[in-house]
Amino acid sequence: MLIKIKRNANRKDVDEFIQKLGGGQAGVKIINWGDDRYLVSKKLTENSPIIEEIKDIKSKHHLSSREFKLEDTVIAIGNTRIGGSSITIIAGPCAIETELQIKSAARFVKAAGAHILRGGAFKPRTSPHSFRGLEEEGLKYLQEAGKEVGLPVVTEVMTAEDVPLVAKYADILQIGSRNMQNYMLLDACGKIRKPILLKRGLSSTVDEFLLASEYILAGGNQNVILCERGIRTFENAFRNTLDLNAVAYLKQVSHLPVIVDPSHGTGLRPLVTPLAQAAIAVGADGVIIEATATPDEALCDGAQSLDEPMLNTLITNVNRISSVVYR
Amino acid sequence: MLIKIKRNANRKDVDEFIQKLGGGQAGVKIINWGDDRYLVSKKLTENSPIIEEIKDIKSKHHLSSREFKLEDTVIAIGNTRIGGSSITIIAGPCAIETELQIKSAARFVKAAGAHILRGGAFKPRTSPHSFRGLEEEGLKYLQEAGKEVGLPVVTEVMTAEDVPLVAKYADILQIGSRNMQNYMLLDACGKIRKPILLKRGLSSTVDEFLLASEYILAGGNQNVILCERGIRTFENAFRNTLDLNAVAYLKQVSHLPVIVDPSHGTGLRPLVTPLAQAAIAVGADGVIIEATATPDEALCDGAQSLDEPMLNTLITNVNRISSVVYR
Amino acid sequence: MLIKIKRNANRKDVDEFIQKLGGGQAGVKIINWGDDRYLVSKKLTENSPIIEEIKDIKSKHHLSSREFKLEDTVIAIGNTRIGGSSITIIAGPCAIETELQIKSAARFVKAAGAHILRGGAFKPRTSPHSFRGLEEEGLKYLQEAGKEVGLPVVTEVMTAEDVPLVAKYADILQIGSRNMQNYMLLDACGKIRKPILLKRGLSSTVDEFLLASEYILAGGNQNVILCERGIRTFENAFRNTLDLNAVAYLKQVSHLPVIVDPSHGTGLRPLVTPLAQAAIAVGADGVIIEATATPDEALCDGAQSLDEPMLNTLITNVNRISSVVYR
Amino acid sequence: MLIKIKRNANRKDVDEFIQKLGGGQAGVKIINWGDDRYLVSKKLTENSPIIEEIKDIKSKHHLSSREFKLEDTVIAIGNTRIGGSSITIIAGPCAIETELQIKSAARFVKAAGAHILRGGAFKPRTSPHSFRGLEEEGLKYLQEAGKEVGLPVVTEVMTAEDVPLVAKYADILQIGSRNMQNYMLLDACGKIRKPILLKRGLSSTVDEFLLASEYILAGGNQNVILCERGIRTFENAFRNTLDLNAVAYLKQVSHLPVIVDPSHGTGLRPLVTPLAQAAIAVGADGVIIEATATPDEALCDGAQSLDEPMLNTLITNVNRISSVVYR
Repeated sequence: MLIKIKRNANRKDVDEFIQKLGGGQAGVKIINWGDDRYLVSKKLTENSPIIEEIKDIKSKHHLSSREFKLEDTVIAIGNTRIGGSSITIIAGPCAIETELQIKSAARFVKAAGAHILRGGAFKPRTSPHSFRGLEEEGLKYLQEAGKEVGLPVVTEVMTAEDVPLVAKYADILQIGSRNMQNYMLLDACGKIRKPILLKRGLSSTVDEFLLASEYILAGGNQNVILCERGIRTFENAFRNTLDLNAVAYLKQVSHLPVIVDPSHGTGLRPLVTPLAQAAIAVGADGVIIEATATPDEALCDGAQSLDEPMLNTLITNVNRISSVVYR
Repeated sequence: MLIKIKRNANRKDVDEFIQKLGGGQAGVKIINWGDDRYLVSKKLTENSPIIEEIKDIKSKHHLSSREFKLEDTVIAIGNTRIGGSSITIIAGPCAIETELQIKSAARFVKAAGAHILRGGAFKPRTSPHSFRGLEEEGLKYLQEAGKEVGLPVVTEVMTAEDVPLVAKYADILQIGSRNMQNYMLLDACGKIRKPILLKRGLSSTVDEFLLASEYILAGGNQNVILCERGIRTFENAFRNTLDLNAVAYLKQVSHLPVIVDPSHGTGLRPLVTPLAQAAIAVGADGVIIEATATPDEALCDGAQSLDEPMLNTLITNVNRISSVVYR
Repeated sequence: MLIKIKRNANRKDVDEFIQKLGGGQAGVKIINWGDDRYLVSKKLTENSPIIEEIKDIKSKHHLSSREFKLEDTVIAIGNTRIGGSSITIIAGPCAIETELQIKSAARFVKAAGAHILRGGAFKPRTSPHSFRGLEEEGLKYLQEAGKEVGLPVVTEVMTAEDVPLVAKYADILQIGSRNMQNYMLLDACGKIRKPILLKRGLSSTVDEFLLASEYILAGGNQNVILCERGIRTFENAFRNTLDLNAVAYLKQVSHLPVIVDPSHGTGLRPLVTPLAQAAIAVGADGVIIEATATPDEALCDGAQSLDEPMLNTLITNVNRISSVVYR
Repeated sequence: MLIKIKRNANRKDVDEFIQKLGGGQAGVKIINWGDDRYLVSKKLTENSPIIEEIKDIKSKHHLSSREFKLEDTVIAIGNTRIGGSSITIIAGPCAIETELQIKSAARFVKAAGAHILRGGAFKPRTSPHSFRGLEEEGLKYLQEAGKEVGLPVVTEVMTAEDVPLVAKYADILQIGSRNMQNYMLLDACGKIRKPILLKRGLSSTVDEFLLASEYILAGGNQNVILCERGIRTFENAFRNTLDLNAVAYLKQVSHLPVIVDPSHGTGLRPLVTPLAQAAIAVGADGVIIEATATPDEALCDGAQSLDEPMLNTLITNVNRISSVVYR
């Protein structure tokens, strides 16, 4: 359960109460939620004047659940909103390769009607012999590209110690699938206040996905965006199997916004637009799309990247769907 | 490759040519497609006057592929169409339990705007100790219920020898997931001309799914409807993982109509409508929905069945989506 | 629970008691176990003089569980035993192709020390265009080949109506993976008394596997041999993933013998012998191996078939392991 | 391919040659292997006097493959060996909880005949609200416990910056499943020379597993031990599905030692010993076992931990198997 602590309770009384409940060995600990503090505890053996309110959350996803917070979380980045009544479109290349490439992508992404620019500067690669990104140089190009066209930017951070560096340049930090259970990184992202786009691990259950979000939320960062990006199954006709059941389920049990990545979720260009349509129809708060001027020359993920005309079509179509789905 | 045989070629010349190509041991054989005959052969070592045309299909899905037939297959059942420019809604209870139950379901299914009535008379059950269906008595009730409201009916057939019996009562025969690779049953369904609703096996690849359809098509029955109904994955928050990647993929590589079953595909009532919406948005030709007057009392699959108001909402929503998806 | 009926109870009293417990609609029914009859019922609302004994089996696998029968089931086929204190080796080609081929295989299989000869006459094939077996002609060759060398034979039956035909020639009938939930076939195999080798479906849980065996057992045929043959997972370096956890688990919860098929379980010749060794070490009652004189020329599954020297090595090795595993 | 560079080649000539082959953008780079340097390149467009030898490795697993190094890698830690002609047994508790607990475990682990002591000081936990380990205090207890009984110790490192700290106390560093693709951590482990026990990701293919090992090897650390610990599948009767196919496969394609973890691989105490036996029978170089004095009181993974008598039995049994498997 969650025990809300009175704002004027002093630290000493709180610590004493924690000890009475069993202390850290019983798993009792403080978590922050905005300006409030809560105690997480399995039981409440005695009363205390420091208690403001008791929330007997049945879900083990304390902070991400609708039991804890009924209304949708809406995350603001400047004038852009993620969650709530409208959909958000994030687009851009897999990897930032050159200044020219990302700036040209930024222009057509903006023109197509997307709301946020994406691009990778640190690239996790299965083989150590693949292109691993431009790192800080790439972050700079990305930030400039976003500013030129007036779009916020999102990019991946791969390790806890890079969080401050990436947070310097990016408006949203992305945690990739392979790092969904990198707890050091989750903890580090819980300590900042910039929004975190958390991608589902490629064979993580929705339960584990929500528990990963708890790490960030428990650190005090309420700005978590969940991202479904396909799971690993026996099927090998596609790179991954996009799990839209999970999207409908997450929207029901959690107040966090949910974004869908049909590019990684399919791995095949002709499937990206139909699945983006399906994502909006199932209730997702937006999509994140790999798009670049010349997909066939991309150093990374070209086979699933859209070019400018395809991105235009995708955005037109998802907007049409969005207009008829009650949100 | 497929070698189209001239209509006036006589059987003896055809047989001789088959022997020249290596005969049955080389896998050479005749398949029927409407009034036409084709030879399937891996190679064409010599010419023959019986050859009308050579179709060098690269796909191993000879007859189901768009290489063989570019335009969408549209299947007519009376005035109802499956495939093509409109969507088809199939609804009804999991199992036929009583005459009253199926007739009452038929009325609200019709009133809600569905096009085809479903109901199971032969039920495959994981445990031998579960309710296994009313069998022929159920088939009669189903046929009558359909007639009373003017809807064609679909029901499952579980074994080759039951095909004639089920075909006597049903407008469409369904092959269930567990039987997708029951080749005797596939062969038997290839010999009739009533439409076959073929459900994907719960861990069959799309490739195996299309090969199963080839069994029916190769027998000469062109009226095959593919049905995606969820696959088995590591995720256990839902009964199955609905694979909408597969739907987009099948629509691209095959001319056959594709229907989606979000009831089995999720197993959870609150997810059925969002996933039905997604199915139409991704390009499916229709949905098949478990619906019954009192889901909580159903002997089978109650947890995923909709009641009348929910079915009304679902149909309204999918029609709205359909109206904005270019078909 | 299982309610054992007194042997002298008359049918009328039994039927009346069934009605009192709720009848078929409540899932109450009779199952045979040797010369005994049991009632399966969820509850026991009243007493009756027909009751001999009450077995309150917690497992839903009534008849296959060790709760019902503690000691290992040992199945006798002539002088050969499956289950109990020694291991059984079944070997032979995937498909019977010619009389010569199966007879030559029989000779080296016998010489290598195997106990049972295998060979397929009815072949389930993913594509309708592949070789589908010699059917009854193949059954005859197999029976003769077995007789010539003095080995019992096992072969697959694919459909309920073929059960009498296959039972005429074979000592053991095999139900293949694709048919593990072909309930008509399971029922038909429950009506005969020849041993049934039941292969696990390629994505069936162990729970579903045991429930499939219940169909056969509930029909009165106690001679069921379970066969683990690999499951479908995300891994594609091998044809399947052999699940030896399942073998250890099945041996603990069930009294039925468990055989392992490392040929299908790996799909790769160099892995067959190591995995056969592992199977015996984990506690399996035997292995079933694809072996043929000239694997590279086989019409079916050549890549996973062993030749004579490899089979000799395998049998030597598994016997060495068997000698040090307490059985 | 791998191009071995002459030992006396100077850096400038090497750099020039790298540029001629296309430089970093073409993926050309230097890797260290003991005292040797190699260039990785997709092609060799011209000759150079710096070339000592060309190894045209077909496998994309350059350094871990038997194509590169035929003979088994044997890793020495003091007098203990991993790989080669004998098996290695690693045992100890999941988490280090108190000084007393780890020291008492060390004594019975040693007495039972194990060769290496394990214990976790940094624990990755799915939920942020679970016990996360004693950290450096735990490392100290572990080191002391190992010294008292004369066993080397292995423990998990979770992040790149902790590598020096953990390397100070541990003889072998373990990379956990969740971190198999934490490339920063892999890189950091490539820079030290202590042995690395690399656990397979819970849904990583064997191909990805070997590529992860390449990160460490390419950094110059040749002391990599692969550890199969079960994969995630649809089966939920066990925590994971132990993949012994992978062990046989890895032993064939790679020269690295392979250890099996049947504790995580099954998650069920009664299955641990049978699967350990199978692991040795399939050709693994050893097993790693969770064992603690009082499993039922463990803060972590009690349900899969063995107590002292069970560990004794396990070690007796695997030694018996080992004695009859040709190694």
